[in-house]
Amino acid sequence: MAIDVERVAAAGSSPFALDVAEIAERFASLSDGAVADYIPELGKADPDWFGVAVATIDGAVHAAGDAEVPFTIQSISKPFVYGLALNDRGGEEVLRRVGTEPTGDAFNSIEIDEATRRPFNPMVNAGAIVTAGMVTGADPQRRLNRVTGFMSDFAGRDLDLDEEVFRSERDTGDRNRAIAYFMRAHGMLDDVDDVLDLYFKQCSVLVTCRDLAVMAATLANGGVNPVTGVRALAPEHVKSVLSVMATCGMYDFAGEWLYSVGLPAKSGVAGGIIAVLPGQLGIGVFSPPLDDRGNSVRGIAVCQELSRRFHLHQYRPGLIAMDAVVRRYTGGAVRARRTRSAEEVAVLDREGSRIAVYEIGGELSFGPTERLTRTVLGELDGVGFVVLDFRRTSGIDDASCGLVGRLAGMAAERGARVIVAHIADDRLAVEAATDADEALQRCEDQLLAEALGPRDAVEVPLDRQPLLAGLDPATLAKLEAAAVSQSLGPGDVLFREGEDARDIYFVRSGALRAELQPADGPPRRLLTMGPGTVLGEIALLDGGSRSATVIADEPSTVQALSFEAITALGAAHPGLTVALYRNLGRLLAWRLRRATDQVRALER
Amino acid sequence: MAIDVERVAAAGSSPFALDVAEIAERFASLSDGAVADYIPELGKADPDWFGVAVATIDGAVHAAGDAEVPFTIQSISKPFVYGLALNDRGGEEVLRRVGTEPTGDAFNSIEIDEATRRPFNPMVNAGAIVTAGMVTGADPQRRLNRVTGFMSDFAGRDLDLDEEVFRSERDTGDRNRAIAYFMRAHGMLDDVDDVLDLYFKQCSVLVTCRDLAVMAATLANGGVNPVTGVRALAPEHVKSVLSVMATCGMYDFAGEWLYSVGLPAKSGVAGGIIAVLPGQLGIGVFSPPLDDRGNSVRGIAVCQELSRRFHLHQYRPGLIAMDAVVRRYTGGAVRARRTRSAEEVAVLDREGSRIAVYEIGGELSFGPTERLTRTVLGELDGVGFVVLDFRRTSGIDDASCGLVGRLAGMAAERGARVIVAHIADDRLAVEAATDADEALQRCEDQLLAEALGPRDAVEVPLDRQPLLAGLDPATLAKLEAAAVSQSLGPGDVLFREGEDARDIYFVRSGALRAELQPADGPPRRLLTMGPGTVLGEIALLDGGSRSATVIADEPSTVQALSFEAITALGAAHPGLTVALYRNLGRLLAWRLRRATDQVRALER
Repeated sequence: MAIDVERVAAAGSSPFALDVAEIAERFASLSDGAVADYIPELGKADPDWFGVAVATIDGAVHAAGDAEVPFTIQSISKPFVYGLALNDRGGEEVLRRVGTEPTGDAFNSIEIDEATRRPFNPMVNAGAIVTAGMVTGADPQRRLNRVTGFMSDFAGRDLDLDEEVFRSERDTGDRNRAIAYFMRAHGMLDDVDDVLDLYFKQCSVLVTCRDLAVMAATLANGGVNPVTGVRALAPEHVKSVLSVMATCGMYDFAGEWLYSVGLPAKSGVAGGIIAVLPGQLGIGVFSPPLDDRGNSVRGIAVCQELSRRFHLHQYRPGLIAMDAVVRRYTGGAVRARRTRSAEEVAVLDREGSRIAVYEIGGELSFGPTERLTRTVLGELDGVGFVVLDFRRTSGIDDASCGLVGRLAGMAAERGARVIVAHIADDRLAVEAATDADEALQRCEDQLLAEALGPRDAVEVPLDRQPLLAGLDPATLAKLEAAAVSQSLGPGDVLFREGEDARDIYFVRSGALRAELQPADGPPRRLLTMGPGTVLGEIALLDGGSRSATVIADEPSTVQALSFEAITALGAAHPGLTVALYRNLGRLLAWRLRRATDQVRALER
Repeated sequence: MAIDVERVAAAGSSPFALDVAEIAERFASLSDGAVADYIPELGKADPDWFGVAVATIDGAVHAAGDAEVPFTIQSISKPFVYGLALNDRGGEEVLRRVGTEPTGDAFNSIEIDEATRRPFNPMVNAGAIVTAGMVTGADPQRRLNRVTGFMSDFAGRDLDLDEEVFRSERDTGDRNRAIAYFMRAHGMLDDVDDVLDLYFKQCSVLVTCRDLAVMAATLANGGVNPVTGVRALAPEHVKSVLSVMATCGMYDFAGEWLYSVGLPAKSGVAGGIIAVLPGQLGIGVFSPPLDDRGNSVRGIAVCQELSRRFHLHQYRPGLIAMDAVVRRYTGGAVRARRTRSAEEVAVLDREGSRIAVYEIGGELSFGPTERLTRTVLGELDGVGFVVLDFRRTSGIDDASCGLVGRLAGMAAERGARVIVAHIADDRLAVEAATDADEALQRCEDQLLAEALGPRDAVEVPLDRQPLLAGLDPATLAKLEAAAVSQSLGPGDVLFREGEDARDIYFVRSGALRAELQPADGPPRRLLTMGPGTVLGEIALLDGGSRSATVIADEPSTVQALSFEAITALGAAHPGLTVALYRNLGRLLAWRLRRATDQVRALER
């Protein structure tokens, strides 16, 4: 045992790495308890061995002390083999043979629930032996391979047996043999020798306390090993495993453990302990000296200290489900990335606030989702469109999908259209859009269609282009004469990023998109531009090159005016240049105001 | 029992309200079990009474059926009186007299932990009677008032006793009398009659199942009643109450209950059940017929169905702590709301990306915070400043404050300055700023000081104002001659929102802020403007009125040019107007580009 806090600090992986090292150092001096010796091989353990490891669900492992010393897993195998039995036989069959009730008795009691003939739970030896008997496989070797393979998935590396310990266990296992025969007498077991052999072997699997932390973190992570990314157990069985660990994992210390430490846990007679904070982390501790109840003395002390210091109790204060609504804004403040004509802008300025956008965050379990449904319904007055942007969510369960679906139905009855964005989920029977921008655009399109009628063939001639507003008819006529009309089909490129800018373009009809085409990754749309939009106008100030590629989305007509023609006309008509720059200034000032509004809405 | 699903739907409170009504309707047909009659008064209950209520931590209550029928709370009083004892005596003293270990025995067993002489836990009658004996108060009436007052805080209304039931309980309570004397024999109780009287009375408190749901939601909400906002119990005691409910609340059904329903719970012999999903909700069910173990048959069925359908099991899959980092951006994309001179902008364009801003969300318990510390340290290469913006966090515990503090220390050792924003917490020993903007500004100031030397007395004359760039010296001299210098002291107002715009101002030295002064609420700063900034320039395009009030933050000098003077000069020097508009266009185009970058950074 040599923990070098300075060295760990220098490695500088994280503040918490220092805590783990410091806690391991502090409790090394705790010398209570005695090494188990009822199995002779176990008695050879060094009482000074002491390792602490904490693994998080994002795959970080903080370890200190003898984190790499191998020892036998012993009873800590029980929750994992219980998971394997659940996997192999399903919850119902397993429940028929092993209960889930804490007993308040010691781990090796020969007791049975007389009413159901089942052992009380899978954490006492009787239940664990019956559980081992439920592992499937054609022959004993294959069943053993499945047990070790299954535990290896949790540990993220291939685990071996300690043959010496196995033989020692087998040769001295009369009490377990008695239990096994007692279980067979109750019809809960078939082949005593085979099953006991498997049971002794599962207890003799060699692990380190780093392994234990990763195994525990795999349970914390819903059954997926956070280091390897491999799913070791289905989520519904993880739930069952954690439940029996919570009530039965620490034998007749289970209640006090849950009260003081508050983590589902399991201990082993070789001195190991695992503890699980679901959704956060797994703890593994190894220190051979045990207390009267068979739990590692330093292991308990370390878990108590970690829980106390970092508030890891499962019922810790402050465990309040977050409001799922991370941000809300209206279509009044944030517009779809699509330019609109002045007429359309006026409609959206007037009606845009009827579009309510909710940006949703976090894990959409029942609590946050149910609250969300009430929030949306409570704010529905005057709202015609609800966009639920799921971009920042980490997941949604089926019940929550159902609630959101029924929210959409109730909103529709009140005249509001609900669109979900950034989520593609068959369980969600609601109109869906790729992202919030697409959803916003659909809402705006409907608002415009309602206000202005069908929008199929909008044309904006030059004299209605804001950039040319206020020009006298004669000058305008000269500009129109100088303009070159150009038709584009879907996919036609108007110009490419990086090309020299020589013309300004006015969109007369159709729609074009400006996009960036990064070398790595797919093109990214910046903006869709409809009739009445001017393109490349900034280059009027300074020339320069195109900052994006512009491509037609649909059949479109644009009118090009070369800078050359504008300069020539400006020389002849001095007022033209001033008017153009002034209009450009107004356009930019208006866009800047919109962008600033948007920043404010997004920052809120 | 009459649940009108249509009526509830019409009321339209939320999708989940329909589920509660539907579940109540469905399980009304479940007719197993028998009404308890060992206390004669209880035998008078109508077996058809059936109410279901769910209360959420944001104070919504969904109820269906006989949610307003009063009945006696019976054993559901036990966790609450246990909470009161913890409140009155502290955890240590209570633990010395009552254990926390499940027994696997029935609720009325006369049993004791021989090693400690304590009753096993406060949920069996023996433990509950000892617990009642720990409530403080000068005399029996005051102790009773404290018990009913305490439970009333949980329910959010004044609760009364059912005197008939109390007398019936007292007159037939010999078994409890035996338990009480047995406890006194073990030195755990003083006055048997007084304590039993209190115990029978606490069991006779009248509640509805709506009350039970709110009481359970108060436990779910960390001890604060979510409807009234009143704190009923300290968070650390809530943790203890939930722990014993989890392992002992359902007597010898506790293990199976936690396995299948997965919620800390408590049942009463009058047919009530409460269940708690910490951080989310409380459930109350009332239906008198009981099963063999003394738990309400419909109550269990409803809780099982709610848990199954909405994934309310405390170890439900998908319970993964969120990444605390909601959004990250650099000082390259988002600048402080402070204008800078061209020289300064060049520095920030070059160095701004050395400022890393992390927007933090959610509840900062150990898991998310520990991960945050590793994220920040892992991305520290090339970073000189870390801003942790806590705006979207709902809370932070002391351990997490410690981790963030040590993160700042470790970052400092690597040359990075850490500033926390939007959090004022003495436990957080880190440089703090009011908001992210203030933090950004400090980082920018340091970057500028490092690159450009001390920034105390910067002066930007007119010929270095970007709006006047490219003017010939003669025109510039004429403008300078027309400009009027004006000095302002801190707090001096340059102009007010709504005033007519007649001048354009160039900031020569000092700093001014633009702010909005809403009728309701405090002034809101939009922007701070330093030397080299032009003010009121948009009005050059269209005139109009001031859009904000501008006030000096420090001693400042501005140079005013009236629109009149500009027009006059423009008439004499035709190139001036074109140059001004062109420069203004460039300035606006540049600002628009920055705003667009910022929108993109914020949207990410």
